[in-house]
Formats: sequence, structure tokens, C-alpha cells
Amino acid sequence: MIEKGEVKFIGRVLTANEISKIEVFPKFCDGLKGINDFSHLIILYWFHQRDNEKERQTLRVIPRRHFNAPEVGVFACRSPSRPNPIGLCVVQLIEVKNCILKVKGLDAWEDSPIIDIKPYLPRIDMVSEVKTPEWTKNEPKP
Amino acid sequence: MIEKGEVKFIGRVLTANEISKIEVFPKFCDGLKGINDFSHLIILYWFHQRDNEKERQTLRVIPRRHFNAPEVGVFACRSPSRPNPIGLCVVQLIEVKNCILKVKGLDAWEDSPIIDIKPYLPRIDMVSEVKTPEWTKNEPKP
Repeated sequence: MIEKGEVKFIGRVLTANEISKIEVFPKFCDGLKGINDFSHLIILYWFHQRDNEKERQTLRVIPRRHFNAPEVGVFACRSPSRPNPIGLCVVQLIEVKNCILKVKGLDAWEDSPIIDIKPYLPRIDMVSEVKTPEWTKNEPKP
Repeated sequence: MIEKGEVKFIGRVLTANEISKIEVFPKFCDGLKGINDFSHLIILYWFHQRDNEKERQTLRVIPRRHFNAPEVGVFACRSPSRPNPIGLCVVQLIEVKNCILKVKGLDAWEDSPIIDIKPYLPRIDMVSEVKTPEWTKNEPKP
């Protein structure tokens, strides 16, 4: 059985702030056609600073951004230390120009590689009746 | 500059139906601690049948599930043909038992490798005022 796959980096975070800029590399730029029609996107990025064996073997953490969080599995929190260092952020798309996306709400560091961009589709991505444990409510500002 | 990364498969889809079963491999099972406290999860999986050069070089598609869709970039739709064959599904968690997750709403084929599991957090994952183009509304049943 195959046990692994390869991801190509399709872009990177140019600047990270309240408004961030994402550069999509020229060879992938054609894939952006029509993206302007969406107000929100799902960005998948690579926690490049956690891409080492120690961080990737981490299976339990105490989510440090949340006050009073218990120790939980990495699949029960959004820790950047996890078997695959993939981050996921829903962002608002502000502008697209010359293969550069200006977005709001990206929680990634400068230079993080981008591995995928998907449009946010309310029908499948929005769930309103959701249960989460108490510790997730002791939350940092977005 | 580094141009690629490696993903390890942490599990696989055992059965795919209205209710699907996901097996998390024993060595990653510890990462599930506390997952039962969440009602919804984000599943990242691998479109293993599209993991070839032809599909991964595809940058434009006509979304075939949507009536009257125009040609768009792969980053402006949820096509399984894309540079990184990563699928994303928000699912309802029904049960966890012996490292097997029973979930509702997983749009993946049997045997698809799983690459990550994240809890759905309404504060960051739920957006209510969203704009999407008309063609996304000619939608198939979930």
C-alpha cells in the first residue's frame, strides 16, 4: 500500500498582516480564472517551520492559544504540530491582480508555502449547528 | 527555494456511503483524543485516482457537477483535478470507536487516503455572508 504523497508548492505568503498577500507562482496562475466571483476562499498552506520529524510525530498537545485547554489529540485541535503540517484558513478575498491575492484573515506566517486554494461554498462548508468543547470558547481574537 | 513537501497518509476511507467510515492507522490513533467533543470535522483526503501528472497539470476545468458551469480555474472550483490532489469535506461526526470514525457527508471514494482531520470551529470556519457565482447554485445534491 502506498503510504505517502507529494505536494507541490503553488505559491507563498508574500506579506502577513490583517490583510495578507499571497503570490501564486506563474506556472499555476491560470488556475485562478473566475476566482474573483467568490467573496471567500479556503487557503491550505504548509507550516514550513514545523516540517521536521519531531513536530510531525507530535500527536498530543495543549492548545496554547486557548486559556485552560486540556491536553488533546492533534486531530482535535488546530495545532501546527501534526503528522502533516497543513494549515487551513477561511479568508475573505479582497482583490486579485497579477497572480497576487489580497486576503483578510489569513493566519499564516510570511513565506509559508501555499498548497491549495478552494472557493468557500456555503452549501457544503457552512454548518450552523455545531458543538465544540468549552476550551475552544476561551479563544484568542481572530 | 524548496518547492515540494511530503504528506503521510494517516488513515483511509473504509466505506463510503451516506454514512462513511474512516480508519485512522494505529500509529496516529493517539491524535484522536478529545475528538468526540466536536460535532463536525474537516477531513482532508487524497484524490488518489487523480494523483498523476496529467490531472495534476490541469489548471482549467468545466465543473461537471454543475449545470451550465463555465470554464474556470481549478482554484475557483472544487475539481479533483488540481496541482495537489487534496479533497476537503466538512462532515458530521457520528461516532468514534477503536480508531474508526463514523461520519456523515464525506464525499470521498472508498480507499481514499486521509491526510488530516481538523475540528470544525464556527468562529473561524463559518462565514454567513458569502458571495458565489451563479453556476455554483445549479448544484448537485450534497
